[in-house]
Amino acid sequence: MTSLSTEQVKSEAHIIDGKAIAASIRQDIAEQVAALGETDKPGLAVILVGSRLDSQTYVNMKKKACEAAGIVSFGFDFEDTVTQEVLLETIQKLNQDDRVHGILVQLPLPSHLDQDATLKSVHPDKDVDGLHPTNVAALQMYSGHFLEAPFSIPCTPLGCCVLLEQSAVPLRGAHCVVLGRSQLVGWPMARLLLAQDATVTVVHSKTKNIEDMVRQADVVVAAVGRAEMVKGDWLKPGAVVIDVGINSVDTPGEKKPYKLVGDVHYDSAKAVASKITPVPGGVGPMTIAMLLRNTLASFQRMQKQTQTPL
Amino acid sequence: MTSLSTEQVKSEAHIIDGKAIAASIRQDIAEQVAALGETDKPGLAVILVGSRLDSQTYVNMKKKACEAAGIVSFGFDFEDTVTQEVLLETIQKLNQDDRVHGILVQLPLPSHLDQDATLKSVHPDKDVDGLHPTNVAALQMYSGHFLEAPFSIPCTPLGCCVLLEQSAVPLRGAHCVVLGRSQLVGWPMARLLLAQDATVTVVHSKTKNIEDMVRQADVVVAAVGRAEMVKGDWLKPGAVVIDVGINSVDTPGEKKPYKLVGDVHYDSAKAVASKITPVPGGVGPMTIAMLLRNTLASFQRMQKQTQTPL
Repeated sequence: MTSLSTEQVKSEAHIIDGKAIAASIRQDIAEQVAALGETDKPGLAVILVGSRLDSQTYVNMKKKACEAAGIVSFGFDFEDTVTQEVLLETIQKLNQDDRVHGILVQLPLPSHLDQDATLKSVHPDKDVDGLHPTNVAALQMYSGHFLEAPFSIPCTPLGCCVLLEQSAVPLRGAHCVVLGRSQLVGWPMARLLLAQDATVTVVHSKTKNIEDMVRQADVVVAAVGRAEMVKGDWLKPGAVVIDVGINSVDTPGEKKPYKLVGDVHYDSAKAVASKITPVPGGVGPMTIAMLLRNTLASFQRMQKQTQTPL
Repeated sequence: MTSLSTEQVKSEAHIIDGKAIAASIRQDIAEQVAALGETDKPGLAVILVGSRLDSQTYVNMKKKACEAAGIVSFGFDFEDTVTQEVLLETIQKLNQDDRVHGILVQLPLPSHLDQDATLKSVHPDKDVDGLHPTNVAALQMYSGHFLEAPFSIPCTPLGCCVLLEQSAVPLRGAHCVVLGRSQLVGWPMARLLLAQDATVTVVHSKTKNIEDMVRQADVVVAAVGRAEMVKGDWLKPGAVVIDVGINSVDTPGEKKPYKLVGDVHYDSAKAVASKITPVPGGVGPMTIAMLLRNTLASFQRMQKQTQTPL
């Protein structure tokens, strides 16, 4: 009897299956794209500079995902040595090109290039990463539903919001603790949670007593890029854990010399949390699904603008 | 002996004298302006629409403050019935006018006018209130010192930062709880505190257990517009309190039929806090001082741009 009830209390967290949720979204996008005219498809330009292996991998995944969804992808691969001028000229042409509804510049850029100027040069309407100042400002001033925003929201935090919604996690009045304050994830995530009426705390490398902060959270979003930093005993029992981290750690003696882990120590955390995203297979697949979704949404907004009003 | 030591422990908070700090800043600005050529002064355009008494009072205070500092003020007072077109034409002319370095549109506007479109029509370089999307985005992406930003930061949160700095409040790693999430105060304040390496929590009307949240704070910034909401027993002993609220409450039977109070219950709070801003005389005077400061900074940036580089 006692052992049974302990077992019930100690039941493991529900695994939020980002892979399945992303697949379903991608299927839905593919159906919407298939229903469009043959000559009237969304197009995504993907710009890669240099030879970073991780960037090449991400770019290939994005192009393949486009193909699978019926979105036309236009690849631009530049040498490490490309000049700022050539890069900006390319973006200007893509801004003008009616076949292109989204422009993605794979980050990081080599250090001789001006990342801010490059991101600014993308037309805000085609900025599917949501990093142009116009879209950054729009997000700060937006309080509607994240899937109804008339501008692009950065793909990773947007994907986290979809995971929380599809997992029926109540956010209104919930205390959400975001670990990390980056422009790409932490800070926009904080804003998106606040817009859903959550109480939001942002913690980071300078935070004192970070464990005590995390222990108060109803929802933890970890986006710091430190392998398995958040342990199970940092969590309030029943907390929801969204793990944005993708860290490669060595596995000496194993067949594969490394493995991917999140910012959360998965095994100890899933014994305490009520819901948790795995790594891989959690947030990662959502980022690409949201890129396709932002490209389709951008296409749809442009179509509307070119239609003659009745 | 016992009574003496109790007294020492219960010593009251240091009062952060916003009036004196603002006066010193205004004096400094006046000296800088006086040192400029007679025909080469910063200019601020102040646009008022309608007959709200509080707006008229604020506008008059701002114009007087300009005059005292040697900043030229240009007043534009419109009837309640002014059209959006006339308002935007006026702003366009001011955008072109070399005598004008700052344009302030007193908010709120009457409901038939589009506030967003109006704020957007002000040239970002002349947007001394920091509410243009370009400046909103710039703040979200900025992590330098708040007085060195090459764009305007909203006057009230900027003033709060100056008060904290002049009162030598350490922010790095400190837990700051911001009450309120407005575009004008709460949200930019959260960003400014984060940029100073504070751990930041934003609480608001939907927050559960708001008292418990506030009780954890090393620094409390109250900007909710609810008279005396934060009580002394909500505070951690030694907390620093910045009270942005200015609320009018009735005082039946008194000579003056109302009095101004903050969002913090001052008498109980000052018995617990280590430092506290009074209302009036705390944040309020800083807002106007920062408007003058932003106008002068805007003037200085424009001067630099028109100088021939060596």
